[in-house]
Amino acid sequence: MAEFDLIERIRARAIARDGVLLGIGDDAALLQVPAGHELAVTADTLNAGVHFPADAAPADIGWKALAVNLSDLASMGARPAWCTLSLSLPGDDTAWLDAFLDGFLGLADTHAVALVGGDTTRGPLSIAVTAMGWVEAGAALRRDGARPGDDVWVTGTLGDAAAALVLGGYVPIPLDGVAMPVVEAGNAAALRARLARPAPRVAVGRALAGLAHACVDVSDGLLADLGHICRRSGVGAEIELARLPASPALRAAYADDELRAALQAAGGDDYELCFSASTAAREA
Amino acid sequence: MAEFDLIERIRARAIARDGVLLGIGDDAALLQVPAGHELAVTADTLNAGVHFPADAAPADIGWKALAVNLSDLASMGARPAWCTLSLSLPGDDTAWLDAFLDGFLGLADTHAVALVGGDTTRGPLSIAVTAMGWVEAGAALRRDGARPGDDVWVTGTLGDAAAALVLGGYVPIPLDGVAMPVVEAGNAAALRARLARPAPRVAVGRALAGLAHACVDVSDGLLADLGHICRRSGVGAEIELARLPASPALRAAYADDELRAALQAAGGDDYELCFSASTAAREA
Repeated sequence: MAEFDLIERIRARAIARDGVLLGIGDDAALLQVPAGHELAVTADTLNAGVHFPADAAPADIGWKALAVNLSDLASMGARPAWCTLSLSLPGDDTAWLDAFLDGFLGLADTHAVALVGGDTTRGPLSIAVTAMGWVEAGAALRRDGARPGDDVWVTGTLGDAAAALVLGGYVPIPLDGVAMPVVEAGNAAALRARLARPAPRVAVGRALAGLAHACVDVSDGLLADLGHICRRSGVGAEIELARLPASPALRAAYADDELRAALQAAGGDDYELCFSASTAAREA
Repeated sequence: MAEFDLIERIRARAIARDGVLLGIGDDAALLQVPAGHELAVTADTLNAGVHFPADAAPADIGWKALAVNLSDLASMGARPAWCTLSLSLPGDDTAWLDAFLDGFLGLADTHAVALVGGDTTRGPLSIAVTAMGWVEAGAALRRDGARPGDDVWVTGTLGDAAAALVLGGYVPIPLDGVAMPVVEAGNAAALRARLARPAPRVAVGRALAGLAHACVDVSDGLLADLGHICRRSGVGAEIELARLPASPALRAAYADDELRAALQAAGGDDYELCFSASTAAREA
């Protein structure tokens, strides 16, 4: 299948949306950022064998390639709007492509994100996405706004994706002594789902815009990502490991409190938001 | 060298510019499109062994990765402003990275383009770029605006890059009977320079915005790219092959008129602009 056919296959499934004056099909897309808003832009690439196993389900790969980018927009408090997709494929497997698009465009539809450009090339499997969105002028959640005395918050639960990596035998996390647990099938599926299909916290990020002082998404691990906020903001932080939120599946997999907390603090791939806010905002 | 060190190495060399409220260093960049303008966005990836030989000079690879994207913006009549760069690298070769940045950021500086985001990952050598720019509302040069009776124009000269491909023994172009010519060293260098370092026609594109009816950049070959305009605009086109502009180096390499014209019409990789305009605009 030639490149133009692949592009046509993708274009036929891309949705329209407000702000897209011209989508796929020209040399560049033409887009309109609403007045009084700033454009938020982020880019993240997923490579086979590095960010996902080469035999991962194509729909999961598609979902995650967009999810990690929407998570970055969420952590800025931005509303996702558009994306580009550059897809390097080893062969002409249209069944693979269709399944990939099921995941990618399924998540895009959920957040009303329009695919507006990109390309397909022959090469080792690699997915490069740039996601764009907008945020009210001055309301973006940056890393450099945390203040002394702020509370530190995290959305959802932490550690499930890291546990799934341990379960899968990948363990690319620097944790000594994390043995592979024996996990009941239902719990294992729950953990793996968090790794395969992270849910970007777009609605929470929107609600936090103009309210939180600083925000980051937890992709590298809570300690590393909170460290980014601390460095940029010139503050320190204290975390009570015992109070890190854990899912029932994670508690079942790791009954040992210390082991579980280590996984939650250093594991990463959670795509939850970590943010700081004034203690006065606790009621909000 | 860890990813954060690579990013810091890149960030330290990225320039600031108007419209960049927040550059590299947060989850997303924050950018400002001037009022009354539309955002133009394009994405193009270059893979080793597909778009350039694996042993190509890293500075040339960097230059070309940005150039092919700026060429897309030029063909819309847009002013380039920002880009993201996702770089997959097989190893930790900082000398390679620095040379790559010499080419990439050298061209970026020429056009006042700010690098505002991206990532670096381990993987087969691949460079995914998204370029953004802006154009006055309604003035963009689309593919679908050509009208019956328009003149067809092309900037610069065509065929040099295709000749360099033949010279290099790559010949990924579907041309029968194109023998490798014997070319004097200076001419060979001139042809190779056009392939290695195409010059995006930004200034011409800007001058054509609001003047030309339709425009495309010549990346796939003149006939294929003009075909895009014709399909989108619902028109036909006539080209006099003998009048295609050729460089002195190309004329020296291919004295045979028909062979030269075939290379110019079907070769591609020129990154010149092909546009249509009313005959009344000939004086402009």
